[in-house]
Amino acid sequence: MAADPAALVGAARQGDRGAIAKLISLVETGGDAAFAAVADLYGHTGDSYTVGMTGAPGSGKSTLTDKLIARIRGEGVEVGVLAIDPTSPFTGGAILGDRVRMQDHATDEGVFIRSMATRGHLGGLALATPQAVRVLDAAGKPWVIIETVGVGQVEVEIAGAADTTIVVVNPGWGDGVQANKAGLLEIADILVVNKADRPGTADTVRDLELMLELAGERDWRPPIVETVATDGRGIDELWDAVLAHRSFLEADGRLDRRRQARLRDELRAIVHERLGARVEDVCSGARFDDVLARVEARELDPHSAAEELLAGS
Amino acid sequence: MAADPAALVGAARQGDRGAIAKLISLVETGGDAAFAAVADLYGHTGDSYTVGMTGAPGSGKSTLTDKLIARIRGEGVEVGVLAIDPTSPFTGGAILGDRVRMQDHATDEGVFIRSMATRGHLGGLALATPQAVRVLDAAGKPWVIIETVGVGQVEVEIAGAADTTIVVVNPGWGDGVQANKAGLLEIADILVVNKADRPGTADTVRDLELMLELAGERDWRPPIVETVATDGRGIDELWDAVLAHRSFLEADGRLDRRRQARLRDELRAIVHERLGARVEDVCSGARFDDVLARVEARELDPHSAAEELLAGS
Repeated sequence: MAADPAALVGAARQGDRGAIAKLISLVETGGDAAFAAVADLYGHTGDSYTVGMTGAPGSGKSTLTDKLIARIRGEGVEVGVLAIDPTSPFTGGAILGDRVRMQDHATDEGVFIRSMATRGHLGGLALATPQAVRVLDAAGKPWVIIETVGVGQVEVEIAGAADTTIVVVNPGWGDGVQANKAGLLEIADILVVNKADRPGTADTVRDLELMLELAGERDWRPPIVETVATDGRGIDELWDAVLAHRSFLEADGRLDRRRQARLRDELRAIVHERLGARVEDVCSGARFDDVLARVEARELDPHSAAEELLAGS
Repeated sequence: MAADPAALVGAARQGDRGAIAKLISLVETGGDAAFAAVADLYGHTGDSYTVGMTGAPGSGKSTLTDKLIARIRGEGVEVGVLAIDPTSPFTGGAILGDRVRMQDHATDEGVFIRSMATRGHLGGLALATPQAVRVLDAAGKPWVIIETVGVGQVEVEIAGAADTTIVVVNPGWGDGVQANKAGLLEIADILVVNKADRPGTADTVRDLELMLELAGERDWRPPIVETVATDGRGIDELWDAVLAHRSFLEADGRLDRRRQARLRDELRAIVHERLGARVEDVCSGARFDDVLARVEARELDPHSAAEELLAGS
């Protein structure tokens, strides 16, 4: 990665796909170069609308995403897609996955698809995803879809941190134990019952309606959309639901408040991460060993020792 | 609590039970007064030998502790007991529990028993327990028993942070799912099969031996002691095992190394706790709101904002 962050940001803003990819790799890795890049491009962000897409593996999220990409491209606008996979040890990222996904849109310059995997440290993806969205935002993608591979805690958190969040279930979803069902309902702005040509669809829709009923009054009642992603059934209705939710949010400042709350959470998470890193700094090296030896010798008590270690840190 | 920490420490060192109780309440609560008290008494510590006692509720830990107290008192020395109960919402602490426990030793000035419950914040007990041990240490108790009510993560951690850790199981322990079995074996210096008059004792001893075998070579192989705490069977053998482990640790500097490692962990935990508290400080108030507003207005990117918030903190 020869180019400096500022040059990459400039190129990405001109739509240079290589520069966009490099910047996303950079924010995935984190560190000072990533911070510099985000600082450079942050002023050019704020125009993208994000759609989160989550659901159990095999529920058909990727096919739905493909159909939504086509629908968005039909409007004549560009779209970026981040596929978030905390379970993958591969970064830079999950290249096979990218290629498979790219097939339908491989020749379409208006679509940028990128997988993001974990860098192995807790919360890494949750912190990196909004930065990657900003890269796509600054690169002029008015729509960004954030698709998670599963429904783990981090994935639900990431998909829930979008302007509109779609939760995908299948007929029979109500059966058996499903981890995190409540968490999924909580973040859903739109509920999709995909594979709605299968038996049990009506029951699942009824179950979801009941669960929404039990969850109590909300300003926005998530619509339940039935789709068969493989043959495109219900995609228009899903797109209409996304637009309806967007209009709802934009009508009276809700979108700004939602984004402000998200930014507040993000800022706290960054502060938390940075202070966490200080524990390592403070509790290692010769200075720590020296203080520890004085505590052992009872020249210093543990709390005063911690205070001394943290002084000036 | 009228008396200042220094006066309390002075009285506690003279064996004043009220002062000891107040100091333990103080370290349970935490805060500046607690730090001041520990700073005052820390120089007078280092002479107590701690025995951790853990096992599932109902395994007979309290009865075993009672018998050990009697055994230690038989040597003519004093003993302090901390009963750690993270599940209790009561502090200062679990008074009924203290009274029940005290019955056998109520008139014995050489025994000090105290329950400690949670203050509700994560890790609170794990940080408070070593301070409470120091209070008993400074008050001249050469033996301190730390008994946990259950085998939750925090309890195992606390019991494991003793010089000698006793893990109590019952016949049939190997049956069914038992959370944290590996964690318990890992911290055990002595394994006790209590209620050893029940069927299945021989099987359980065999299971434990097999598990120890599978765990691989260790410098110290935890002995397995069979007890019937209610009628005192096996208590002499248990006490001998404690003394044998103590001799093993004291023989070639192992005890010092073990305590140093514990002190290192404690110091890290205190630093971690203090830095964690800073997240709250940094991410609240007018300054935070002002920085957040500038991030919202895109005058400042999130990472630079975090840097600014942390500068000088």
